[in-house]
Amino acid sequence: MGKQIRLGIVGYGNLGKGAVWAAGQNPDLQLQAIFTRRDPEAVDVEGAVPLRPIRELPDWKGELDVLVLCAGSAKDLPTMTPALAEHFSLVDSFDQHSEIPAHFAAVEAAAQKGGTLALISAGWDPGLFSLARLYGAAALPQGESTTFWGKGVSQGHSNALRRLPGVLDAKQYTIPIPAMLQAVREGKALRPQELHRRVCYVAAEPGWDLEALRREIETLPGYFAGYQTEVYFVSLEELHRDHSGQPHGGGVIRSGVTGPLGERRQRMECSLTLDSNPEFTASVLLSCARAVHRMRQRGETGCRTLLDVVPSDLAPGSPEALRAQLL
Amino acid sequence: MGKQIRLGIVGYGNLGKGAVWAAGQNPDLQLQAIFTRRDPEAVDVEGAVPLRPIRELPDWKGELDVLVLCAGSAKDLPTMTPALAEHFSLVDSFDQHSEIPAHFAAVEAAAQKGGTLALISAGWDPGLFSLARLYGAAALPQGESTTFWGKGVSQGHSNALRRLPGVLDAKQYTIPIPAMLQAVREGKALRPQELHRRVCYVAAEPGWDLEALRREIETLPGYFAGYQTEVYFVSLEELHRDHSGQPHGGGVIRSGVTGPLGERRQRMECSLTLDSNPEFTASVLLSCARAVHRMRQRGETGCRTLLDVVPSDLAPGSPEALRAQLL
Repeated sequence: MGKQIRLGIVGYGNLGKGAVWAAGQNPDLQLQAIFTRRDPEAVDVEGAVPLRPIRELPDWKGELDVLVLCAGSAKDLPTMTPALAEHFSLVDSFDQHSEIPAHFAAVEAAAQKGGTLALISAGWDPGLFSLARLYGAAALPQGESTTFWGKGVSQGHSNALRRLPGVLDAKQYTIPIPAMLQAVREGKALRPQELHRRVCYVAAEPGWDLEALRREIETLPGYFAGYQTEVYFVSLEELHRDHSGQPHGGGVIRSGVTGPLGERRQRMECSLTLDSNPEFTASVLLSCARAVHRMRQRGETGCRTLLDVVPSDLAPGSPEALRAQLL
Repeated sequence: MGKQIRLGIVGYGNLGKGAVWAAGQNPDLQLQAIFTRRDPEAVDVEGAVPLRPIRELPDWKGELDVLVLCAGSAKDLPTMTPALAEHFSLVDSFDQHSEIPAHFAAVEAAAQKGGTLALISAGWDPGLFSLARLYGAAALPQGESTTFWGKGVSQGHSNALRRLPGVLDAKQYTIPIPAMLQAVREGKALRPQELHRRVCYVAAEPGWDLEALRREIETLPGYFAGYQTEVYFVSLEELHRDHSGQPHGGGVIRSGVTGPLGERRQRMECSLTLDSNPEFTASVLLSCARAVHRMRQRGETGCRTLLDVVPSDLAPGSPEALRAQLL
């Protein structure tokens, strides 16, 4: 094995913790430090974790090959990624789909200025699911791609529930409907509202009008209206005891046709079943950190997404070894 | 849309026909000619197909951007691909897994000599399944990959049946066993013999001892011994009427763990369900021809496999458009 790739992790929430554990599974990656905006002394760490204040980051410039950004997509990454890309090669998991082209442009400019390489929007959606959509469109040009999510916790929908008056805490699961997935596999095009049901576990304030709250949830525009929605009222204890996991998953189905008259049906399907969404995302980010380092070593600079990454750059081992083992 | 990519197809069997139809689904690809070793006048063509004798191929050097080789893996490609790679950029579907490193070396030498770019072993296994194994190993380093095949016709096993005395014709289906797939999904490592059953439809010579033949099949070393094997004797008419399709499929399951103690299970699964194996393979080959042309246009030369191909090179459209549509 050659020299290890030296990693810095930025952020020590669920994703950052997952990245620390994932680093332990990759012998060619070496975790140098984790950078946090909090006071490192006040952070509850699990095990021996080299936690540093984020203001120290500039001093580490020569000590880190790749930064793994484990901060929030909505508030942190739009400014953090371009700012850091001027000084470090890095990977982020920016997942606001419609904002990706703008984020790409900002990071591209910063990385070109700094002579670094930045891989954005890594993870599983965007990320591995984007790749599944691309390979599907390439292999079956006459076809339809459908993405489904779940069973898993939707953070945005859980937050929407929590903002309603009378709600103490809540969790929303997005669950694909098996019969509808089967219809997609048979070539039908369906909308997300037809593919998924939304199941809400809600802890309400004592004495609140639960039937009124249920109706409010079921008709909430942009979130639950139009969906098959189920609302279960539970105690705060029950919510925290039974619904604190972070399972997720989903899949991409490409259904297409070939032949002179399109008479043969062909189907590609990729799916994920995850006990822990942040840990899997972190594990994908670390394979991307490896690819970032290899691209930078070849002299490449600028912004990339997984659609632009040579697959063999993601895995440990030489291209020769990968060919012999995997083809 | 820019200039079309000019394709030549070599071979007009099932795969070559699939490539002709697939070309019709890709507006950026233009089929110039199909080259055959047979007398073009004697070949039964479907529709208006520009069939040329293969000896004309050298005259087409300036007229073709990429050759799509649709010849046999066992006998033709080991010599044909290196010979043609000296003169043309090309893609082949060489699928003899253990011979791929040697084939790669021969094609690499020829392509470097000729200043061409050659992509070998494209299709679905090797090909898309190799990619699934690679993304799985990269995203879940602590895990196990299992590949299954079917339901589909195994050509090698069908041929083994046909070589037995007393057999007029036969077809063998490889069928994954659902309960065993489920065990793999739950993290169990199983061998191909445990994952698949083999179902044989055999037309035997009239008066042949069928029970002796059944035992001979079930115990055939290297093919059926050790497998759950079922043998059905049918008439030649029934065999040709009910078993002339070319369905296939299969999948790759990556089952891994994350977390400080590996306590969270994570699963990735990719699968194919194909009405026509050769037509799907041909469709993948055409997306690879697009990538070959783009790599060659950037000045790259030498041998590649799908593990070395930037995903966005496979699909029509610019990287910007793909990012906006697919991420």
